[in-house]
Amino acid sequence: MRNFAVTMAYNGAAYHGFQRQDNGVTIQQTVEAAIKKLTGCEVGINGCSRTDAGVHANEFVFSVPIDSRIPCDGFVKGMNALLPTDIAILSCKETDSNFHARYSCKGKQYLYRIYTSEIRDVFSENTALHYPYTLNIPLMNEAAELLVGTHDFAAFCKAESLHLVKTTVRTVTEARVADNGKYTDIYVSGDGFLHNMVRIIAGTLIYISEGKRTAEDITAALETGDRERAGKTAPACGLYLNKVFY
Amino acid sequence: MRNFAVTMAYNGAAYHGFQRQDNGVTIQQTVEAAIKKLTGCEVGINGCSRTDAGVHANEFVFSVPIDSRIPCDGFVKGMNALLPTDIAILSCKETDSNFHARYSCKGKQYLYRIYTSEIRDVFSENTALHYPYTLNIPLMNEAAELLVGTHDFAAFCKAESLHLVKTTVRTVTEARVADNGKYTDIYVSGDGFLHNMVRIIAGTLIYISEGKRTAEDITAALETGDRERAGKTAPACGLYLNKVFY
Repeated sequence: MRNFAVTMAYNGAAYHGFQRQDNGVTIQQTVEAAIKKLTGCEVGINGCSRTDAGVHANEFVFSVPIDSRIPCDGFVKGMNALLPTDIAILSCKETDSNFHARYSCKGKQYLYRIYTSEIRDVFSENTALHYPYTLNIPLMNEAAELLVGTHDFAAFCKAESLHLVKTTVRTVTEARVADNGKYTDIYVSGDGFLHNMVRIIAGTLIYISEGKRTAEDITAALETGDRERAGKTAPACGLYLNKVFY
Repeated sequence: MRNFAVTMAYNGAAYHGFQRQDNGVTIQQTVEAAIKKLTGCEVGINGCSRTDAGVHANEFVFSVPIDSRIPCDGFVKGMNALLPTDIAILSCKETDSNFHARYSCKGKQYLYRIYTSEIRDVFSENTALHYPYTLNIPLMNEAAELLVGTHDFAAFCKAESLHLVKTTVRTVTEARVADNGKYTDIYVSGDGFLHNMVRIIAGTLIYISEGKRTAEDITAALETGDRERAGKTAPACGLYLNKVFY
């Protein structure tokens, strides 16, 4: 049995997230069906993370044990010919059998993309949040810095998912807001993320800009775990898994 | 009766072109339906041009005689609330009754957008041509210069549409290829355009890069009107009406 480490990108607008499910088409089942068609192998791919419905990936890694002699470059070309145009295989390499995209992962960077012009951009309707006001980026960056470090991020987790994790302590290594011309981009990196964590961080930083939350709220949210001290969960359409670190 | 000059942008991926037709949803009928809903007026809008199915507009002007007292800023806000997110009204101003978006138009600039990385971009599947090879931009620009000026562009017109025009002579004021980082962009400006003219110019310049056509073919195409001396019609997804001049 060989083990492939595969990097892909996808536009998640048309998918019910990464993970296979009974109701709705997901990235996982679409990719597994293409592998079956290309190699004849019934495989289960191991994704580096789950992404929610409508969330995108500039870089997403999966590992897959595969009983096939297909060369790696043939895998990339063949998959890209079979997959729909909103999923692209970027690279494939053969790796040792211990590599697992999720368990071997050392960290991830997410990007939350915001379009702030008054009138919406007809070309990014599903790939950025349209927020038609000016953002106070310096103020957001001051608040974002408070998130960096090892903290209990319970206040930044979807309430219904809190029982699914052993601990809500995570280490955030980067949280910053950048004016990238057409878009305002929020970058959040860390060793692991709770459900909706980046979307709640994005929503909180927008509330900071609006004066609906303050730096004190962020500190209190981290200390008390009170979801109310954080902001709203920002919509899925602006979120990208941007980089995966091993 | 007032007369509005309205500028809009649209992502044409989901539409059967600008012009109202019986089979398929078009930009025109979508906009007219929104105007009816907003103002109660049954109007016919006059577009600055027709765009084909799948073609986009960064700037498209229409004029509309309208028997309504709605203020211009209310028109912009109301329309953007009613229109689907792939159409956006950018501005509206009241103008004299002689203004007609098509007949008053002095010129237009089109953009043809090409994505040349080997692996497709999952975020521009319907908004750029994916051409996974290197383009010889200097060679394309040398050939593009031959198009500038007043010429008979019969060889750059869809054959089935030749009988619809009185003359195939047009003046092209700009034809150039630019490396814009992520995309290679072809800009073509002129006083008027034949059906598929920019898409055939784009396809011809790609053939120039591939060595399938030469500068001599362009000169011959302009002199003889022979469609075979030009290149293939490039796909609609890469084409944008970019600017309209009055």
